[in-house]
Amino acid sequence: MDFEIYYKFLLTLAIILLAARVGGEMAQRYLKQPPVLGELAAGMIISPFALGGLLHDPIVLNFAVIQGAFGLDSFSPLEIISQIAIVVLLFVAGVETDIKSFTRNILPGSAVAFGGVIFPFVLGFLATMLLGNQYGLAGWLFMGATLTATSVGVTVRLFLDMGRLQTKPGTIIVVAAVVDDIISIVVLSMVVSVAQTGSLGLPNAAKILVTSFAAWFVLLMIGMRGNRFISRYLLGPFRRSGTMPVVALLLGFLIAYLATRVNLHPVVGAYLAGLMFAATADREEILQMTRPIMLFLGPFFFAYLGMQVQVSSLWGALALGLTLLVAAIVGKMVGCYIPARLVGKLRNRGGMIVGVGMVPRGEVGLIVAGAGLLAGAISRELFGVAVAISIITTLITPTMLRPFLVKRSTRSLLPE
Amino acid sequence: MDFEIYYKFLLTLAIILLAARVGGEMAQRYLKQPPVLGELAAGMIISPFALGGLLHDPIVLNFAVIQGAFGLDSFSPLEIISQIAIVVLLFVAGVETDIKSFTRNILPGSAVAFGGVIFPFVLGFLATMLLGNQYGLAGWLFMGATLTATSVGVTVRLFLDMGRLQTKPGTIIVVAAVVDDIISIVVLSMVVSVAQTGSLGLPNAAKILVTSFAAWFVLLMIGMRGNRFISRYLLGPFRRSGTMPVVALLLGFLIAYLATRVNLHPVVGAYLAGLMFAATADREEILQMTRPIMLFLGPFFFAYLGMQVQVSSLWGALALGLTLLVAAIVGKMVGCYIPARLVGKLRNRGGMIVGVGMVPRGEVGLIVAGAGLLAGAISRELFGVAVAISIITTLITPTMLRPFLVKRSTRSLLPE
Repeated sequence: MDFEIYYKFLLTLAIILLAARVGGEMAQRYLKQPPVLGELAAGMIISPFALGGLLHDPIVLNFAVIQGAFGLDSFSPLEIISQIAIVVLLFVAGVETDIKSFTRNILPGSAVAFGGVIFPFVLGFLATMLLGNQYGLAGWLFMGATLTATSVGVTVRLFLDMGRLQTKPGTIIVVAAVVDDIISIVVLSMVVSVAQTGSLGLPNAAKILVTSFAAWFVLLMIGMRGNRFISRYLLGPFRRSGTMPVVALLLGFLIAYLATRVNLHPVVGAYLAGLMFAATADREEILQMTRPIMLFLGPFFFAYLGMQVQVSSLWGALALGLTLLVAAIVGKMVGCYIPARLVGKLRNRGGMIVGVGMVPRGEVGLIVAGAGLLAGAISRELFGVAVAISIITTLITPTMLRPFLVKRSTRSLLPE
Repeated sequence: MDFEIYYKFLLTLAIILLAARVGGEMAQRYLKQPPVLGELAAGMIISPFALGGLLHDPIVLNFAVIQGAFGLDSFSPLEIISQIAIVVLLFVAGVETDIKSFTRNILPGSAVAFGGVIFPFVLGFLATMLLGNQYGLAGWLFMGATLTATSVGVTVRLFLDMGRLQTKPGTIIVVAAVVDDIISIVVLSMVVSVAQTGSLGLPNAAKILVTSFAAWFVLLMIGMRGNRFISRYLLGPFRRSGTMPVVALLLGFLIAYLATRVNLHPVVGAYLAGLMFAATADREEILQMTRPIMLFLGPFFFAYLGMQVQVSSLWGALALGLTLLVAAIVGKMVGCYIPARLVGKLRNRGGMIVGVGMVPRGEVGLIVAGAGLLAGAISRELFGVAVAISIITTLITPTMLRPFLVKRSTRSLLPE
């Protein structure tokens, strides 16, 4: 038992979280930007491809990829901590959600999600076909699918940082981001089936679509209808020892895992679990005790995301990359603006907030791109492009949002 | 990127922490025992050698040992989380410590630590020599060394659970457990040197002894003298955003790692870092925000400890195991009782509380035994015995302590 390796992970955790905190603080104080951007930038600076690489240590500020275990290509222990972090973050975001406003916005939110999937998919597919013809049908489909995702994590963090999670556009975005996640996973499964069989496995895709939405609906219903039961029988026994909020969070972890069993990303489960507890009388107490845990672990996810960017690898696919970036931004904005106006009945400004707010890609886009990489459908350069699009769309969103938010002090966004 | 493996770790985390919480709650409510015992027992029940083994999954409730990576025998990702958990726990324990009482008890605490090392070492050495003659000098020394450790983590948790961390016996025990850790590491390095070279490397051991104590002293002095500087320049910038306690905890992680660079266990660094902040005006705010993090993660360490017990492997070394168990208990009690009375000026009852309170072994004992296993000096059975001693000494301590604590309601322990 050589404990040195574990100690180095402790060090890595400390450095990543400290860098994220310093970056977040600097972004907020000196650049007037949401902390999440500073956390991403801090990750890029200490990444194995930048500062971390200079250390020449397999573990400290590196991913300590363990090859060949479990028949997997790679296994990064830091990924586990990153998953824990995002689950805590989305759980707390769920608990903070105004549940009435959430249910009221399910229809416009779903419409925004569908629009935000279709436009970027078509644009991404066409751009890759024109500029990356060598990748073939599977490659074109994969890059299209990569652009469909909206990062629930990043989006929620942005609106949380700006104190706008509770506004109508904020709620529509959260609903849309959660629904978007389901659709993206369905698109991914269709694309994988094309890459493997050469043809579109429509029955299989339909099956995933139905089970995903059914699971989503069931979780939501349990939360809505069963919250009194949950509060009394699941949380009740732990109230006297003061550990009730911890148990709620742990149930969130369990539900996050269960969501993955029906092909949803764990953050969807974590968010829905949070929503479930938001409907109980224990909401305030849960928030009070889980928020410190989120403040401690949450930044890890974003710094770790930043750490994955290898800036130097992007030059090889610069033209296609820039085109895809434009497709990602324009596709999402147009695809979300239209339903936000038509179905969500928002004015121009509210529609733009939704359109721009949906732009950040994130974990789901990376999952899709990673699957494409594994299937051999896209190159390592294109994978780098997908990561860069995740980062850049996140970096520019707050700045793009600003023109639509300036009048905040004189006029609330709520009635829009 | 097959995310399934990461999802299974999420599930494992959730099950372990939920089992620990349920176990802790049951121990407290129905058995009137400290929660830590329930957490240990829960770990034993869900361990890979019990319930977890029935799942036949390499990850879920198993250690997912990754062989051969980094030239190490094994690498368990859960061990990282367990290390994070114990660092958070000891950091919070440090912040909670009454710093004046701590410094006042350094002399009696150190005397208790030395007594608590010498007696169990001699008894353990003799017992292994008589009943396990086949292991040779290195084996006898290793088992002696295994018995010297006192678990800072378990001891602090026990006294925290019983609300007695702030009493005089409580403080002496914490000081002694921290000093004990340093001595145990020195003993380990001597024993390893015997196993490797066949002779006692006294100059090397002296070097470790001096650097360890020097580092310990320096950390303590920085905390005592520099806390105003720390408070203003290190924590100050993060006060406005409300993340100051998180930064304090992260500095604790950094110091925990630095402690390992001078051969101390990270928990010693984490505890000293906590002490450092206990001396600042930010103490209350730090406690308020880090306690939820401790309540969330802390139980993982103890459940994980319980998961490592393979009950069935113990029968092969039953006679030697029982003898070593008696040596571990009697040696620690006698070795600590005498200096607690003579140097600590405690009465009989206070002396017994210190003697019994020092009995729990734990992480350091396991490190020593693990090193012995790697060096081939002890068998897998004897390693199992060392783990069992860790658990059993922890399990029986609260019950053994009870006769000396009964009068609590009528009379405070503080003046003893």
